[in-house]
Amino acid sequence: MSSHVAQQEPPSTRKGRATRDRIVEAAAGLMYRHGVAGTSTPAVRDAAGVSSSQIYHYFADKDDLTKAVIAFQAGAILSHQEPLLAKLDSLEALSSWRDVVVEAARQQHGAGGCPLGTLSAELSDSSPWARDALARSFTAWSDAIRGGLAAMIDNGTLRPGTDADGLALALLAAVQGGLILAQAHHDTAALEAILDTVIARIRDHDAKFA
Amino acid sequence: MSSHVAQQEPPSTRKGRATRDRIVEAAAGLMYRHGVAGTSTPAVRDAAGVSSSQIYHYFADKDDLTKAVIAFQAGAILSHQEPLLAKLDSLEALSSWRDVVVEAARQQHGAGGCPLGTLSAELSDSSPWARDALARSFTAWSDAIRGGLAAMIDNGTLRPGTDADGLALALLAAVQGGLILAQAHHDTAALEAILDTVIARIRDHDAKFA
Repeated sequence: MSSHVAQQEPPSTRKGRATRDRIVEAAAGLMYRHGVAGTSTPAVRDAAGVSSSQIYHYFADKDDLTKAVIAFQAGAILSHQEPLLAKLDSLEALSSWRDVVVEAARQQHGAGGCPLGTLSAELSDSSPWARDALARSFTAWSDAIRGGLAAMIDNGTLRPGTDADGLALALLAAVQGGLILAQAHHDTAALEAILDTVIARIRDHDAKFA
Repeated sequence: MSSHVAQQEPPSTRKGRATRDRIVEAAAGLMYRHGVAGTSTPAVRDAAGVSSSQIYHYFADKDDLTKAVIAFQAGAILSHQEPLLAKLDSLEALSSWRDVVVEAARQQHGAGGCPLGTLSAELSDSSPWARDALARSFTAWSDAIRGGLAAMIDNGTLRPGTDADGLALALLAAVQGGLILAQAHHDTAALEAILDTVIARIRDHDAKFA
């Protein structure tokens, strides 16, 4: 893969944007299920219902399409996670967030894993540009978690001096590791165990028990 | 991939075993760096310094070789982890284990990830036999961790009633999630944060503070 990806200009028409979006969404689904290496241009073409020349029109190469898929998956996760995390103003809200994460995994019987974690496991060692994009996506996610924890410190739920940075990294690592094991075991026991362990640790900082 | 893998008979001669081992080790290295889908038979042949016909002699197909790679990686990790975990008889030993895990990741600047986690992210959704083998490997690993925690309950370090099962799953998920983020960020901050959070929670069960 090239170390520098020539990003195409975004389409200027609504129809062009819709076609490009359809290609990215189809590629994202295939790469999620079969990996990037296991996803061919003909498979994307068939899944998106477009021609190969349309794919080549919107994307310089497979790296360019993969970059768009990373942005798509990061956008999907953050647009789901950020509103939840923006409402983290109590330990009950933290438990509700935990339940949403566990329930999403349970509905798939643990299968699938995190789209960003799966892409990172495949691409981070071989593609510096992919690793960079994935690292920035993970940082945006842990920043959103940290924002929720910081709000809980500000409103007096958690004690001043609670390590929001470290606990936010720990919660994101908990989601990633829990989903890896959910995918292998087809159950959510490890995901629940690690989230509950980190949340129990956060509860140790409950300001009411200072 | 086939759902059922015809496992070849193990080689009966020392030379045969050495050749088979060389093929598995070469394939494991390539699959770790490039993924299973990104590893071709010619690449394995060249890396192992064997002929294609030797590969076909020892392995029925790529699934059969991949199955041997999973067993190889699980064996490598467990033969490293189990002796460390068998010596878990104190909170200091737990901290030493944590330091070994972090130091291994730090030496690679976070790159690489866990060989089993990486294989699971790629294979678990598409290959039931791979998922089964990986789940059994993860179970053997969490069993070894649980054994260490159980020994710490038995020798009075941790309070009776400490949830060794849940904490063992949590520690393994911590390793997996921490390594995913180490791979993307090229640093061990998240790995350290999640391991330290789980270990702090385990210290809450210190029998001296019952």
